[in-house]
Amino acid sequence: MIHTRSNEIRVSEIFGPTIQGEGVLIGLPTVFVRSGGCDYRCSWCDSLHAVDSNYRHEWQTMSTEEVWQEIVRLSGGEAVMVSLSGGNPAIQPLGDLIGRGHENGYRFALETQGSVARDWFANLDVLVLSPKPPSSGMETDWEALDDCLRSAGNKPQTVLKFVVFDEADYAYAMTAAARHPHLPVYLQPGNHTPPPAEEADAPIDIDGVMERMRWLVDRVVADRWFEARVLPQLHVLIWGNRRGV
Amino acid sequence: MIHTRSNEIRVSEIFGPTIQGEGVLIGLPTVFVRSGGCDYRCSWCDSLHAVDSNYRHEWQTMSTEEVWQEIVRLSGGEAVMVSLSGGNPAIQPLGDLIGRGHENGYRFALETQGSVARDWFANLDVLVLSPKPPSSGMETDWEALDDCLRSAGNKPQTVLKFVVFDEADYAYAMTAAARHPHLPVYLQPGNHTPPPAEEADAPIDIDGVMERMRWLVDRVVADRWFEARVLPQLHVLIWGNRRGV
Repeated sequence: MIHTRSNEIRVSEIFGPTIQGEGVLIGLPTVFVRSGGCDYRCSWCDSLHAVDSNYRHEWQTMSTEEVWQEIVRLSGGEAVMVSLSGGNPAIQPLGDLIGRGHENGYRFALETQGSVARDWFANLDVLVLSPKPPSSGMETDWEALDDCLRSAGNKPQTVLKFVVFDEADYAYAMTAAARHPHLPVYLQPGNHTPPPAEEADAPIDIDGVMERMRWLVDRVVADRWFEARVLPQLHVLIWGNRRGV
Repeated sequence: MIHTRSNEIRVSEIFGPTIQGEGVLIGLPTVFVRSGGCDYRCSWCDSLHAVDSNYRHEWQTMSTEEVWQEIVRLSGGEAVMVSLSGGNPAIQPLGDLIGRGHENGYRFALETQGSVARDWFANLDVLVLSPKPPSSGMETDWEALDDCLRSAGNKPQTVLKFVVFDEADYAYAMTAAARHPHLPVYLQPGNHTPPPAEEADAPIDIDGVMERMRWLVDRVVADRWFEARVLPQLHVLIWGNRRGV
């Protein structure tokens, strides 16, 4: 478990409120704090601008207080759900920000692949662990994922989310879910046409996403995997690949 | 409060499992029991085939045991979420069915406008109260809605869901939600092109639904109504107006 030392947060973008487009908080108005930098390089990453250090010039180093003030400004000082995403937000020192927000009634959800555990996971309201399936080209460190769960303890609402492109990904999701039968599972059809970081308005393959969505529904029904929820990325259906919404 | 006497359930259709397309259980594999008959006639009803007595010849009168056996058949005997919808399912005697399912690990969600309270609401796992806004042409009986909440007590997870077509509907949703500040709220953009009951594959105005969805997101954000979730009918986006999916 890594303990937080520095107060410097690497930020790719802060935007919102807009609705959460995926997973357990789908539909909920949310301010997004997207951190810069990632220990993974998923082949189909849909947030390369927050991952690839070629975009580092777009990132800002901000203090906890600066990030907090921006959240307050965007939300008009009204308590709202804050999503900490990335990149991998677990490699940023976010514990103080969560404390600052909680004092004011804000809630915090964090989404991470589960490769880096932090003691402040226990202070989250929602922890989304999203281990990356074979199609990502990444290898899962299952012990690190277990560490994340241990760090979180029983405090946050913890769920598993899997992006699924194909049969191998689906099998991976089933295996991973079986390791943690008490955790709710969210399956999400992958998007083969994520935005090129430099071209935010690139067209998106909605038909492909929808076809994969229907396949995934058929798949869980055929396997009688009745505890798994299947949800598309709503923001992609509503706004395409546009950033900042 | 009406107490259940008869064992006869009027059924329009039983289908699934497929994913729940809307509201609090969105994305969850579900078997749908759609009852026939309704005490309302909403102008934009999207289930007229289960409401209008002109379609009565399509309905079947089934015993609790017959409905239960059909649920078991569709789910392969594997416990699954069952959605009781309609029509208004509250006018059917569903208490025994819920008991029968619970013995076998099945869970039950009921969706009703909240015009008729039943003692067996307390046995539900999820109660979705969906009072109808002005665009429906219906008048809300607020005391009946309160009766429904009293019948449910603290047992089921109870939420409010509002279909919203326009500003008047939105204002209605805000007012109704303010009456019950402890209940989670789901807002759903209305569909101006629901399926004519006799033409299940009629085209749907996806662009219109999406435009209303974006408007609704802008609206809750502008009002800082950060507790309300905004969700479209996913099944309409995925399958159009097709029935039985």
